[in-house]
Parts: sequence; C-alpha cells; structure tokens
Amino acid sequence: MEKIKIGIAGFGFMGHCHADTLKTIDEIELTAVADTNPEQLKDAPAGVKVFKSMEEMLKGADMDAVIISTPNITHLEMVEMAAKAKKAIICEKPAAMSVKEFDQMTAVTKENNVLFTVHQQRRWDTDYCIMKEVYDKNMVGDVYVIKSQLYGFNGYMHDWHVFPELGGGMLYDWGVHLIDQILNMVNAPMESLYADLKNVINENVDDYFNIMIRFKNGVTAEIELGTYYLTPKRAWFIGGNKGSAMIDGFAGEGKIVRTSHLLQNVPGKITMTAAGPTRSFGPAAPGLLVEEPLPQVNVSHRDYFLHFIRSYYQKEEIMIKPEQVRKVLCVMDAVRESAKTGKAISLEL
Amino acid sequence: MEKIKIGIAGFGFMGHCHADTLKTIDEIELTAVADTNPEQLKDAPAGVKVFKSMEEMLKGADMDAVIISTPNITHLEMVEMAAKAKKAIICEKPAAMSVKEFDQMTAVTKENNVLFTVHQQRRWDTDYCIMKEVYDKNMVGDVYVIKSQLYGFNGYMHDWHVFPELGGGMLYDWGVHLIDQILNMVNAPMESLYADLKNVINENVDDYFNIMIRFKNGVTAEIELGTYYLTPKRAWFIGGNKGSAMIDGFAGEGKIVRTSHLLQNVPGKITMTAAGPTRSFGPAAPGLLVEEPLPQVNVSHRDYFLHFIRSYYQKEEIMIKPEQVRKVLCVMDAVRESAKTGKAISLEL
Repeated sequence: MEKIKIGIAGFGFMGHCHADTLKTIDEIELTAVADTNPEQLKDAPAGVKVFKSMEEMLKGADMDAVIISTPNITHLEMVEMAAKAKKAIICEKPAAMSVKEFDQMTAVTKENNVLFTVHQQRRWDTDYCIMKEVYDKNMVGDVYVIKSQLYGFNGYMHDWHVFPELGGGMLYDWGVHLIDQILNMVNAPMESLYADLKNVINENVDDYFNIMIRFKNGVTAEIELGTYYLTPKRAWFIGGNKGSAMIDGFAGEGKIVRTSHLLQNVPGKITMTAAGPTRSFGPAAPGLLVEEPLPQVNVSHRDYFLHFIRSYYQKEEIMIKPEQVRKVLCVMDAVRESAKTGKAISLEL
Repeated sequence: MEKIKIGIAGFGFMGHCHADTLKTIDEIELTAVADTNPEQLKDAPAGVKVFKSMEEMLKGADMDAVIISTPNITHLEMVEMAAKAKKAIICEKPAAMSVKEFDQMTAVTKENNVLFTVHQQRRWDTDYCIMKEVYDKNMVGDVYVIKSQLYGFNGYMHDWHVFPELGGGMLYDWGVHLIDQILNMVNAPMESLYADLKNVINENVDDYFNIMIRFKNGVTAEIELGTYYLTPKRAWFIGGNKGSAMIDGFAGEGKIVRTSHLLQNVPGKITMTAAGPTRSFGPAAPGLLVEEPLPQVNVSHRDYFLHFIRSYYQKEEIMIKPEQVRKVLCVMDAVRESAKTGKAISLEL
C-alpha cells in the first residue's frame, strides 16, 4: 500500500507534535512543513521540504493530505487553500472561530470533494474512553450527572493563546475537546445550557469556565476548567442510581463505588459530626461502601491517525464528522452567549 | 437575670436535639414539650410538662418562647398560634414552604409584636465560618468561584422527609442551609440562577440538586448536594486570583494553596502526560505550589441560642433576619422554577 504523503502547515507546538507522531506510522510519509516564522523551521526533520507559507507548500510539495496547525483564526483561509488544491485535510481544533466560519469550510471542502476532518484526538484519551465505557454499559445504572473537570496551576497561557485576536483562550483551546467528549458520550438531544466564562489571571482571554448542559434524556453534564484552580487534576465523576464512577488523572486512575445495599426509609442512626447531628451525611457504616475497578481501555492519540488512514482509503467512515464538529461549535457559541447574558440557552441539537 | 422559659412544639429528631442543647444553657429553662405522637414524648426530660398539641401547650405551659420543630408544612399554622399567644418564636428551617407562606408568618408576628426568628444554626458551622473568614478577608484575592458541596451515601431519607406532602426533600432540608450560607457570605445582589433538581433514589422527593448562582459582584457560587453521590464529603472551594482555599469535612480540615510566582506568557515547558503533551495541565514544578493553613474559628450551634438570648433581651439585633430568610425562600422557589423549565431565573434580590 502506497504511503500517504502529508504536509504540515504551521510548525509550532502542535506541528512538532504531529511530526513526532507521524514518524511512528509506516503508512504515512511526512514530505513537507510550512511556517511563516523561520525560527520554527530550524528543527524540521531531515529530508522534509520546508516552505515559508501554505501557498508555497501547496505549489512545491508532493502531498496527498495536509495537517493545518496554524493559529485558530487562520484555519478558514488554510482550509480554503488546501481544499482548492484538492488535498485531504486534517484541521487542528477548534476547526473554526464560529459556526458561520465552519459552514464556509464544509462548503468549500464539499465543493472540491476532499476529505475534511478535525484533530479531535481527545476522543482517544484514556480517562475519557474509560468513562465512556462506564456510561455505554450502564455500569452505574441510570446516570443523573456527569462531571468533566480540568484544573491547573498555570495562570498564564502560552504563545498566541493569550491573544484574543489570534483565537486564544481556554474555551477554544480545551473547551472544544471537553465539550466534544461529553456530546459524544451522552449522544442525546440537549435541553438547555448555562455557562460561566471568566478571565481570572489573563486580562484578555478566558481561563476559567463552568458549563452546565441538561440533556433531554435526564442526564446533566457539567464541564469545568480552571487554569488557576489550585487543586491540579483531570477529574471525572459519573453518578447513577446504582453507584458512582470517578477518575482523577489523565491515566484514568479511579474506581467505581457502590453501596452493599440501599438504605430504606428508617428513623436513621443519628451521627454526631463536627457540625452537629446529621442522619444523612455522617460517616458510612463499615462495609456499606464497596469499591470495584474501572474498566480498562487501550487507546492512544496515535489511533487517531491510524483511523484517519483507514478512512482515507475508504475502509471506514470518518469518526470526527463535520456535523459533530459543528454541534460543538454551536455549544461554544451558546456558552459565550449565556456567559454574556446570564441566560440559559435552549439548544435544539 | 430571669431564665427564658421555652417550650418545644414537635418532639421528634430536632426537638430532641434542641432539648439536649438547652440543657447546657443556664439562661434557658425548658418548661414544656408537645407532640401529637405519644411515642415521641416517652423520653421527655424529667420535670418538663408534656402536651399532646401546640394548642394545649400554649394554654397550659409557663413559656416565654416556643421552638417550632414540627414537620415543615405545619410551620405556618404553628407560628400563627404562637404569635397570637404572644410568644417569642424560633421556627425550624425551612421556615415556610414558599415565600407566600413566609409573608403570612412575618405579617402575623409583626401584628402581635413578637420576636420571630428561624433556626438557621448552620451559620455557626465550623467549615462555613472558616470559609466566610477567607472570603471576608480576601485571603485568596478577588474571588471568582465559591463551591459548597455535600455528598452522602444515604440514598434514602428519613421519617416524614420522604413525603412531599409533609415538606420533604433535600432542597427543603439542607438546601435552605447551604443557600443561606452562600447568601450570607457573598452578600451581594444576584444576577441569575440555574438549577438542576432530581429524584435519584427517592421516588417522591428530591435527593440531588446543583445550583449555579451568578452574583453581580462577579462571584459565581455553586451549591451541590447529593444523597447518593458516593464520595461522601462536606467540601468547600473558594477560587481567587491570589490562590485557592479548600475544605473537606465538617470539622474544616483543609488548606490555602498559592503559587510561589505567577507564570508569565512563555513558550511553556511541554509536559508529557498519559493524554499526550500539555503545557497548561502537566504536574507543577517542585516548590511552585505553596500551602498555608486556613484561619481558625471557634463556633458551635450552642452559639445560636446564646445569640438568641441576647436578642431576646434586646442586647443585640437578631442575626437570622426575616428578610434574609425570605431571600433564601425566593432562591428556593427560583431553583424549582429553573429545574422545571430549564431556564435561568433572574433574581433582583
């Protein structure tokens, strides 16, 4: 099978990550990299052609597909150029700055009949895939709440991410992943959304958000991220009527907790706590709480590209579908509107 | 100083708690207890007159004040009787089933010129008082988020609390405390509120809620309670731009965490996690996170009654003011409306 020849437009942080990953994949050959900043090209892999712009790369490189990892605001322009040059396209996330922009992208890629997908590789995160299996297999019964939390100590963001005019901010950077994961997990119509979006440390871009989404199937999801929330962790919680599943850490360390029996309506043993007597919130009787391991999964971001290869050769349907990417961008627009107005936004999605 | 003679109407769980507390207070004499259920009166303290109803107690007991600890739906009727009998009134929480009911209570108590307050004793909880001091003294800088969380393993609630027609459910039982604490801490006008309210294990009453309140001073508070949320804890988090304060447990165990310096906008050291490279959410460099102890407080629920005595003798203003109690009930009404409609509720309070 012939190798897929790929070029990378934008050889910054993610561009370098992609080059490193592609090195490990036999079915792909990295043939070119382009960046407007010569500094970024200094450590381009040996034998790879370097170009000072996407235009030049599209003219001069031998490529079947292009990975777009330029700053967010340039994605539309890059996708248009690549589509017209008939290249298959992997665009970094967020694909677009708005739903409107994304619709222009899908139009031009359809018009030119090129494969178009987005690098939503966090659908292959270990922590996420474990929780998705808990959800899909009803391991904690009927789910009433799902929490996805990401907290860090790093008040300041990096490079162009601190500039709104370049598409900076954490909602664009990580929000797009965390929302995509939740929509892909719950996969049900939404009822409404309410969100808080703040600049805590960064003057110009958001670095904290908390999003509550109520789905029509009775599940409520809460997605919270803080870059200056000083209990650094990547945490998940799924609460159901047959137990709770929890994770702390990208590696998916965690457990499922159940009660050995459900307490019936009883007078209730009165437990004295530091805050006086309580019947509902004292310590659990020994043996009441039972722990089980979480399911195991075996995934990596490399799988995103292995999947891309299969779809490139039409052996499987693309998993990151434009209509899904569009839905995430609709939610992101709604988050900004809710945060601005203080109103809940109805979502007929 | 003459002792305040107090009677207790409703000698169930809370009635007994009150009797135990009053025993420890010299300035108060428990003279009577009343309950419609003879079983409850069997262990009435020696020397205390027992009555089979509030009416009988108001006729036959020597009382200056009455504590009302009957089921929630009977509070209005009890307050009306006690006010007309010119007794000072301590009513259990929630004072009323609705704002409308509470307005009737304040009317009748004003009319009869009797002291009327509500047993919102959790303003004297250790965990709460510590966090209030962190907030009041700006110990973590400008606050952007406050979380108050209460999770338990006890899916089923007790006694009359499982019956909606008696005013059961966790929003009435604990919600009223958690909301009162937050309003008393932030003490600023509210912008809007969005809430989720569910029956997870109990068929007939709510046993899970999550309430997001955005205040006009820029603080967002989240109040969450789950009776079948299997990481049992009483947790607080206050996030500010100068650090984070956190508590786990009614006794107030916790810490303040700060960063030794704020990271400026830099290319950012790339940290490899189980979920690929990240610059914002990798582990903290050694020494970056600095811990400090939380402030110490010395409070107990007994203080509620010591305060009541001082206000009874007009030595200090009552701290649980009817207008504050009313505001909490307005928020609870808004919580139910938001949960029912999926809309955010604007609160001009």
